[in-house]
Order: sequence, then C-alpha cells, then structure tokens
Amino acid sequence: MQVPIHVVVLAAGKGTRMRTDLPKVLHRAAGRTLIDWVLEAVSTVEPARTVVVVGHGAEAVAATLPPGVDVCLQEPQLGTGHAVQAALATLDGIAPDDTVIVCYGDGPLILPALVSGLAGRSPGEAVRMVTVDVADPGGYGRILRDGAGSVVGVVEERDASPDQLALTEINTGLYAFRAGDLIEAIGRVEAANAQGEHYLTDVVRILAAGGKTVTTMDADPVEVAGINSHDQLASAESVLRQRINACLMEAGVWMQDPGRTYVDAGVEVEAGARLYAGVHLEGATAVAADAEVGPDTLVRDGRIGRGAHVWYSVVRGAEIGEEAEVGPFASLRPGTVVGRRAKVGTFVETKATTLAEGAKAPHLSYLGDATVGRGANIGAGTITCNYDGYDKHRTVIGDGAFIGSDTMLVAPVTIGERAVTGAGSVITEDVEDGALAVERSPQNQVPGYADRRAARRRVEEADQST
Amino acid sequence: MQVPIHVVVLAAGKGTRMRTDLPKVLHRAAGRTLIDWVLEAVSTVEPARTVVVVGHGAEAVAATLPPGVDVCLQEPQLGTGHAVQAALATLDGIAPDDTVIVCYGDGPLILPALVSGLAGRSPGEAVRMVTVDVADPGGYGRILRDGAGSVVGVVEERDASPDQLALTEINTGLYAFRAGDLIEAIGRVEAANAQGEHYLTDVVRILAAGGKTVTTMDADPVEVAGINSHDQLASAESVLRQRINACLMEAGVWMQDPGRTYVDAGVEVEAGARLYAGVHLEGATAVAADAEVGPDTLVRDGRIGRGAHVWYSVVRGAEIGEEAEVGPFASLRPGTVVGRRAKVGTFVETKATTLAEGAKAPHLSYLGDATVGRGANIGAGTITCNYDGYDKHRTVIGDGAFIGSDTMLVAPVTIGERAVTGAGSVITEDVEDGALAVERSPQNQVPGYADRRAARRRVEEADQST
Amino acid sequence: MQVPIHVVVLAAGKGTRMRTDLPKVLHRAAGRTLIDWVLEAVSTVEPARTVVVVGHGAEAVAATLPPGVDVCLQEPQLGTGHAVQAALATLDGIAPDDTVIVCYGDGPLILPALVSGLAGRSPGEAVRMVTVDVADPGGYGRILRDGAGSVVGVVEERDASPDQLALTEINTGLYAFRAGDLIEAIGRVEAANAQGEHYLTDVVRILAAGGKTVTTMDADPVEVAGINSHDQLASAESVLRQRINACLMEAGVWMQDPGRTYVDAGVEVEAGARLYAGVHLEGATAVAADAEVGPDTLVRDGRIGRGAHVWYSVVRGAEIGEEAEVGPFASLRPGTVVGRRAKVGTFVETKATTLAEGAKAPHLSYLGDATVGRGANIGAGTITCNYDGYDKHRTVIGDGAFIGSDTMLVAPVTIGERAVTGAGSVITEDVEDGALAVERSPQNQVPGYADRRAARRRVEEADQST
Repeated sequence: MQVPIHVVVLAAGKGTRMRTDLPKVLHRAAGRTLIDWVLEAVSTVEPARTVVVVGHGAEAVAATLPPGVDVCLQEPQLGTGHAVQAALATLDGIAPDDTVIVCYGDGPLILPALVSGLAGRSPGEAVRMVTVDVADPGGYGRILRDGAGSVVGVVEERDASPDQLALTEINTGLYAFRAGDLIEAIGRVEAANAQGEHYLTDVVRILAAGGKTVTTMDADPVEVAGINSHDQLASAESVLRQRINACLMEAGVWMQDPGRTYVDAGVEVEAGARLYAGVHLEGATAVAADAEVGPDTLVRDGRIGRGAHVWYSVVRGAEIGEEAEVGPFASLRPGTVVGRRAKVGTFVETKATTLAEGAKAPHLSYLGDATVGRGANIGAGTITCNYDGYDKHRTVIGDGAFIGSDTMLVAPVTIGERAVTGAGSVITEDVEDGALAVERSPQNQVPGYADRRAARRRVEEADQST
Repeated sequence: MQVPIHVVVLAAGKGTRMRTDLPKVLHRAAGRTLIDWVLEAVSTVEPARTVVVVGHGAEAVAATLPPGVDVCLQEPQLGTGHAVQAALATLDGIAPDDTVIVCYGDGPLILPALVSGLAGRSPGEAVRMVTVDVADPGGYGRILRDGAGSVVGVVEERDASPDQLALTEINTGLYAFRAGDLIEAIGRVEAANAQGEHYLTDVVRILAAGGKTVTTMDADPVEVAGINSHDQLASAESVLRQRINACLMEAGVWMQDPGRTYVDAGVEVEAGARLYAGVHLEGATAVAADAEVGPDTLVRDGRIGRGAHVWYSVVRGAEIGEEAEVGPFASLRPGTVVGRRAKVGTFVETKATTLAEGAKAPHLSYLGDATVGRGANIGAGTITCNYDGYDKHRTVIGDGAFIGSDTMLVAPVTIGERAVTGAGSVITEDVEDGALAVERSPQNQVPGYADRRAARRRVEEADQST
Repeated sequence: MQVPIHVVVLAAGKGTRMRTDLPKVLHRAAGRTLIDWVLEAVSTVEPARTVVVVGHGAEAVAATLPPGVDVCLQEPQLGTGHAVQAALATLDGIAPDDTVIVCYGDGPLILPALVSGLAGRSPGEAVRMVTVDVADPGGYGRILRDGAGSVVGVVEERDASPDQLALTEINTGLYAFRAGDLIEAIGRVEAANAQGEHYLTDVVRILAAGGKTVTTMDADPVEVAGINSHDQLASAESVLRQRINACLMEAGVWMQDPGRTYVDAGVEVEAGARLYAGVHLEGATAVAADAEVGPDTLVRDGRIGRGAHVWYSVVRGAEIGEEAEVGPFASLRPGTVVGRRAKVGTFVETKATTLAEGAKAPHLSYLGDATVGRGANIGAGTITCNYDGYDKHRTVIGDGAFIGSDTMLVAPVTIGERAVTGAGSVITEDVEDGALAVERSPQNQVPGYADRRAARRRVEEADQST
C-alpha cells in the first residue's frame, strides 16, 4: 500500500519579468491558471493534503484554489527551504514514513505520469528527485555526483566552479521526500547568503552526506519548465494547446489547423465535429457531433448542437440547437437559445432570446429579451426595442409570424401567431393572431424634384467657382 | 516506348481512428478528398486503367471519382493481396509486360515524380518498390535483404524477430509490378493468418525466391505517409498548404503569413495579388493581380478583380470587379456582381444582386434580388424587402439614384434614374426618374416630456425605496 | 576615436522572382520597406553619409528614404563593383582612412550589432568582411583561403572548381573597407564577363594579392539573408515578427499566440496589455496597459486606452478611451474618439465622431460626423444621415440624450440634452433639451388579414397544381 502523500507547491516567485501585479501563478494558459494546471496534475496521486506557499497575493491565490487545497503565506521570503518549512508547519498529522512531494506552481506542463513517478518513491529512498539533462544548463542548479554516480548535492549556478558549470544534468525542483528525513534535514539547513535565505537544495546535500539514499528520475525538459516571462507563458500555452488538440483529434475531431485552434481545458467536443482555423472554445463549452465551427469564431460557455453550423461569429452563454445556422457575423449573447434548424444570420445580435424550431432571423437584427415562435420569420432590420431608458421589457412573437423588414417592436409587446407586420412599422400595441399590423404614411412623390435640385446645385457651384 | 500502365489504388482501409462513418479516403485536405490527391498524382503517367479498391462505402467513393476511374468492391476484406487480386479481375486486356502500379488511397502527399519513377520500371524488373529509411520504423513492415543487398522479402512488424525489428528500411506499399509476374505470384500467396488474410508483401518474397529482379527506389518519408488519424490528416493538410502556397509565392503572390493562408488546390491567384493572414480561398476562386484580400476573409467560388480590396468579409459565388471595395464586415452571397470601383461596405449583405460601376452601399444594408445602377448611392440601413413570406421579388434602382438612409424598398419596385428617396421611407410604389419619394409623418415635439418622465421616475423610485 | 563612416547600400537588384514592377527594396515586411530596415540598422553607427544605389525606380525609392540618405542611379547596371564606384563618385569629402561600409538593401534582417562589428574595423584592416558557414552554400560566392587561413579571394559559384564548390564559407556581401584601399582597388577591377560587369568581390582578391589585411567576421546566417522571392519575404517577415513580439513580451505584454500577432515596427504596447490571436497593430498605434485587444482585430493608427477592450473589430485613425468597449464587430474609422467607459458595440460603424464619457452605441448603428454627449444612449438601428448626396453635415447629440431605436438623424441636426426620440422616427428638426420628439403614424391593425391571405394563397397553389 502506498504511504500517505502530502504536496507542497512553491508559488512564492514574484514573476518580475511578467511585469504585472498579478501573482505569477495566477497567469492563465489554455483557460486555466498556472497553479490550476499543477494542482490538477498532483491531484491524480490523491494527496492527503496539498499546501500552496505564496509570497504575496495570498488572498488572490487562495480565492482561485479548489476545495481541499490550502494556502500558506511565506513572509518574509527567505528561500525555498524556508518556504517548505512554512508549509510543513501547516501539515499536521504527518508521519515520518509519509511522502512529501515538492513542486513549483509555475510549472503548468507537468503531467500526471511524472507525479506518479515521484509518488512511487520506495520506503528506502530519502528523496527521489527529478533531474534532466539539457544542452544549455545556464541558470539552473547542477546535480553533483560522486565517482560512483551517486548524487551528493546540487550547486547553484552562481556558486559553481568552472568544472561544475560544464555539467548538463540540472535540478528541476521536483522532489518526493520521506517526510521524516525532510523534516530532520531541513532543520539543519543554514542561511545560504547574506540575505538569510535557506535553499531546499541544501537538504539534498545534507541527506547524501548523512548516508541517506538520494535517487533521481528523468523527465522531458518541456514538462518541467517553469514560467518566468510572457515568452515562456506563450510557449507553455502552445504546448497545452497541442496536448488538448491532440486529444480531441484522437477522439475524432477534425481540425483544419490545430496550431490555430484555441480550446480551453475542459471543453467537450464530440467525434465528427469540425473546427476550422481561428476557433476559440472557452469555458464550459460543448460542441456536438457533426457540428461545424469557424473559421474565426469564439464560443464561450456555449453549447453547439449536432450538425449545427456556426461561423465568423461570437457566441457567449448561448445554446445552439441541432442543425441550426449561425453567422457569418452574428453575436449571440447570454441567454440565447437557438432552436433546432433555426437561423441567426448575418449582422444579427441576440440576448436573452429564444428562437423556437425553424425560426429565422437572417439579417441585420437585434433581438433582446424576446421569444420567437416556431417557424417565425424576422425581417431584415427588425429591432426589439427592449430598453426604454429605465427598464428592459420582453417581446413575444408567435409561431409562424412574419415580421416585416425594419419593424420596431416596442416592448412589452406581443405579436400573435401567424401575424404579419408591415415593413418599416413601429409596433407599440399587441397584434392579434393572424392579423396584419402596419404603421405607415402614404408614399408621396415629387416628380422632377431630384433633377431640379441637381440643376440648382450645378448653378450654385458654377456661381461659386466664378 | 513505355509499356501500358494499370493503376490499382488500395482504399479499403476503415480509418477506425477517424471515428466517422465517412470512408477514410473521402476525408478532405486543402479542398480535395484524399483519393483525389492520389488520383491526380497517378494520372500524370497516363494510365490505361485505374481501379480503386474499396472495402465499404463503394457507392460514396464512386460518386466522387473522375471519369475513367473505376471502383471495385472488396467484400469481404481479406488483405492487400486479396484486394489486388480483386482489382486484377476487373482489369481486362492486361498484357504480361504491362506495368501494374499499386498505391494507397490514403496517401495524398505522393507527387508525380515518384509515380513517374515507378512507371519507369525497366522490362527486366519484376517489381520496383518504394522503400524509405526512417528513424522510427515502428508499425511498418521491414525490408529484408540478403548478404548481397538484394531484397528477399518484407516482414510485418508483428512477425519480425528482434533483429528484424532493428531494421530501419520500411515498406511504403508503393509498387510497380510487371503484370505477368504479379499475376503469377499473387496466385501463390497463401492466407497469412487465422482470419484468412492474404498480404501483398508476400508477392515480393515469392518473386525474390523465384529469382526475379526486385528493385527499390527511395522517397521522402513525408510523401509516402498514409493518413490514419485526424492528427495525420491535419499534418497532411499543412504539407499540402505549404506546397500550394510555395507555388503561388513563386508565381509572384505576396502572403503575409503563408502558414495561415488556406488556399484550395485549383484556386487561381495572379502575380501581384496580396493575401493577408487568415484568408481562405476555396473552390473555383480566382484572384486577379494587385487585388488585396484579407485579413480574415473567406472566398468560395468567387472572382476578385484586379486591384480590388476585400477584407474581413465572406464572399460566396460572387464576382467583384476591378478596384472595387468590399468590407470590412460584408457578406456577399451567390449571384452578387460588384461592378468596377463599386463598394459594398460595412455590415452589408448582398444576394443575387448586381451593383453597376461606381455604385456604393457603404453601410448596414441588405440587398437581395436587386439591380443597382451606375453610381447609385445606397444609404445606410437600406433594405430590399424581397420576400413577402411566399415569393422573392426584384428591386431595380436606376443609375445615379440616391436611396436615403433606412429606406425600405418593398419589391417588386423600381426606383428611377437619379431619383431620391427620403430617409426612413417605405417605398411600395415605383419612383420616376429624377423624382423624390418620401413616406413620412410630421415630426412632433413634446417639450419637457423627457424631463417630466425622468422626474416622475425619480419620485417612483424614491417611493419604492421607502 | 572612430573614423568617419560612409555607407553604400546596394539596391539595384531587380527582384525578378518577385514578379512585380515595384523595386525590390520597396517591398514591405512588418510595416517597413526592406531598405528601411537596412537603413535603420546602419544608422546606429551614425554614418557621415549614406548612399543607396538603385538600378531602376530611383525616384520611387528616393521618395521613401529618410532625410540625409541619398540615392544614386546606376545606369546601366554593370555589376556590384560598378555600383560601388558609382556610389563613391557621390561621396565627396571622403578621406583615405575613413571606413566605407557596403551592404545590401534587400537584407532587412541585419541587426545593429553586426553593423557595429563592421564599423569596428581597425586602421590596419583594408577590409573586414562578413562570412558565414552554411550547410548548403549553393548559389553563393565561396571564400578562398590560403594554407595559413588568410582570405585570398572570393569565387562566384559559376566560376568555382569542384573543390571550391565544396567550400561552405560563403560571402555575405557585407564589408567595411578602408576608403583609400577600396578606391584604389576598385579602379583595378576588370570586367568579369562578356556583359562587361565588374564584381566587388574582385576587390577582395586585389587587396589580398597586394598584401593588404583582409579579415572576416562571423554572423548568424538568418541575419544576412537577402530577399529574392515572396517565399523569402514571408520568412523575413516571420523573423521580424518574432523579434518584435519577443521585445514586447519581455516588456510585459501578454500574447495568446505570438506567431499569429502582427505588430508593425514602431507600435507601442504597454506592459500588462493583452493581445489575442489574430491581432494586427499597424502604423502609429499605441496600446495602453491592461487593454485587451482581439481576437481578430486590426488597429491602424489607433490609440487604445488603459483597460479598454477591443475585439473582432477594425479600428483606423481612432482613439479609444480608458475602459471603453468596442466590438465584437465594430468598425471605427478616422476621426473617431471613444470616451472613457463609452461603448461602440456590435455592428456599429463610426467616422469623424466623438462619443463622450459613458456614451453607448451598442448595436447596428452608423455614426458619421457626430458628437455624442456624456452618457447618451444610442438605440439600435440609429443612423446619422450625414450625406445628402452633395455634402456631409454634422449631428450633435446632447448629454444624457436617449435616441430611440431606428432613429434617422437627418443632419445638420441637434438633439438636446436629456432629450428622447421615439423609435423609428426621422428627425429633421432640432430637438430641445428634455423634450420628446416623435415622427410616427398611428398603428393600424387588420384583423385576420394574414390568415385570409394565407388561405387565398393555398387556394392559388392548389389551382396551379391541378
């Protein structure tokens, strides 16, 4: 049986190169904060406790964490060793044979398999640590080994001799400690420099010097990279995107250009769905089989039904039915429900509006706070005047109604089933089922007016130019 | 003189990892099905006959094939050897010295030069086969050679010994056989496994064992890759895109970002045209010199004239004249003809509509089933009310007409040359040349109304809050 | 002290493979011409004089050059040696110990450090030249060295022996000469071929043969690449984009996908700004901290205020205030000023229009030549009818006004403060402060009309089908 696991996530890094006030681990990639990615990976080993050590912004970080994860404020920040000590102080009920996994909150690319590898520390190992061999070790701590190949310590770059600088095996900061050994050794770490900082790497040296077993495991360098700049954040986002998209494609999703398809973690896309280039699927979004999305479309918290077609559009908080059509150039805002085979066409915006099966709003309309009946047709230029400057009111349009072009529906107002409104009408009164409602004046014609005006204009211009 | 060539395209693969019902070879990349790409490559050697062997969906596949290409249903599917036998049975009039080229329908990246290389089989070669040397041969059949370097057979991965697994020269499944040798050997292929499948690779072994000449030719591994997943399909699309775009750039087309420019095979773009990022050119589309398209624009079956500018728009089945301007945010639907120096501007949709030279529809309009005369100006918000709920009707606007903003043109209706309509008018009757037509009521003003209403509202709110 | 530096930029190449009439060095990448990029790099060494030698299109090139840079027409074009001679003839006041830097106008990727390296020529060096070692030297002149490793000349590919072709150190065409040595040697260059062309590379041979010191310096092959095709132009644009974006990210700008973010040289983006995929920032554009731009947005000569949000929009010559919202699907044209916390929403176009603080135009509007007061609300479908077919006129809307949906504001017209217009009104007369203005007829209802029409239609269709 596996021993209980405790996880310490170090998240005190300031992220100076990000040049923002946001705590570094709260920057987002592919729809999640960096720390969320780390916590999701470590959660797969079912830790008894998980503690995130933050240096500043503890409240902001705490507000984003899932239940069961604690935050511990490290103040002042006296190094990684000090941070782990602070975390250990909050981990009550820890037994000497338990495992303490230490990892970094700014390393969103870590995968469950690597965490499992750490969790697989055998009872005899005082520490199992992840190291990687890289072509350019600049900036990282180097792993020191004795003649027999056993790890004897880690030397930080600034303290390394020329020979040590040439070493290419680097420390990743990922460890699984035997709790008893960690607690004992960390108490013996001394301030490493004038600022009084204590480094966790010293624990490795102390354990090795004390004859304890220090083992290493390998990893993909990509997986253990930390984020310290926007450049690195963009690279991490790109890796996450590749992973998410590879998963979706393996599950049967077609992508025209996976490198240009931006799908948040957690979005569901069924086999047979088709995503064109420039698609963004965010938040709690789901796309059903045979739906076609894009090019150049954003869906946030939307549900796209089977066989629906949504392109060159922005969809937020909306539900799009089977075989419905949306776009090009539509904006669906929260509370929109587009029925089966219904259509929200070109230059149409909807908000808190339901279109029943087969209803169509093909062009240049604004439908807000409206209910549109089955098979109703909304003429181009129709607007629900839902706002009177003080309140919003609802418009109800019956099944099979035909709203003429440029109809203003001054809410609250109800248009009956099968009713028709004349083009250009302002409808302020309810319209009965099957009735025609028109608001219009007679058309007047002034023969020759335009020609006379043009002639006058020509004379004026001639006068002005003389 | 070259001997007659017969081509057998193996297309029975189920494409299980695609997770769709569509026959695998009917998936599309860069505007063509996979099998179309293969057939186009093999057509360059002018085969006497081409037979596509399909395992299921024969009718669906047959429906997409060009004239002169036959489909042969392999049912049940008993291996590649069995598939070739089925194909040979349909190839009447085949002479022993003819060449039979065998290739795969899911390998869209094959280029004519490779097919020519196969077609160049010399009379003494019983089979010329394409092999490639790869770093990771996993999953592929390995080429077995004797001490003298002659091919003696192909071993499938599952049957390979550890030594054979270490071989890195793999079989691509591309062959040119001497017909007589193929026919004789294939009759001797035995069921390779419990399922009773016959493998074409056995023919190689039989020919070699019989002292026939087996030669190999090399190829770019990219070119011979088969498509078995959406991931591989996306990669193939990317390679095809690079090839198409490299051709266009060599021909003088400027591309801001070739990796983000999606041009179907067969689209014509003239030297001097400029394509910005996010452009999709599909189907029977042509773009003339000095035209500028994009960013973020789709043209399907459209013709863009010399010097025209089309951006942030969707164009389908439309013709855009020289130096015309379209967009940003326009949707041109089938039957649209935009004349020389005409303009279809922002938030304008057209369908079955002709704008003559110099006509302008700059903003927020829907023009359907309309003819717009030379130099006519369509005010913002103009809508052709072409649909009465039953039929579509035409609108005719004369040369030099000036349609006021928000004019509803209730079709069928004709606006004369140089005629003017007043803003906000619903025009139901024809308007004479040079006339002014207005449909409008007098403007009424209620002084202080808004202020009194606001005051009342403030009182109500105060009441409610007490 | 550094000796005076004179720069000769060779820009006579025809760029045949570009297949356009535009002089090659006037093609653009990342917002600048190729020659501009070169001139910017060389300007960092503060040359006394800079001369650009062009072969054709001298006037077109000259028109784009910054002050202090001269153009010299080489006609006929008799080789690079001849071009440098032509340039020297225009460089009066040149002293023998001065440095003459020669570089190419089609090499936009050169960086200041490389130019500085050339400018660092020591007095004893007759020429310091840039060479690079490449895997595939095809097409380039090879550097010839003697047994001691000293450069003795450059051999063009077509004149090279098989042994020389195998050399991988190539000439980049970048040199810093001691002026006196250059002038003397170039006079001794002889026509290299039947066309009477003189090659600058001969100068190297002459100097070496004369016992002068010829030194070389290394460079990144990417940096010294010339542009001869659209493919190479696209690659150069991609490199420039990476450089610009790396700079911005280092300065604290977030980018969702740097490979899809198109920022011209010279655009300013503050730390904390967020750029989504598909953003184009062009010309004199500035984006303030915490602003969010994109996806799929173009800003040309625009200023985006702190905390503003602009997405799926096109912005040209506009100023967007702090915390303002623009889009999705808005087009802001020149002269637009969007105030603090103001909104230009979906399917809204503006031109020469100011929206004061908190004013909102959320949907489907065209605002041209308008002034919108603080907190005013513009209803959906509102249009400023600013053009009467002859002139443009202004619309003034007062603070707190409420413009009803589909209001036509026939300019010149003024809507008072807090005034209200009724939906669907055509407003031709000014409206007082606090007043309500309506232009409307009574609504008429014809009960059963629609049902009777449908019944009639059914009868007709039945008749037709019999």
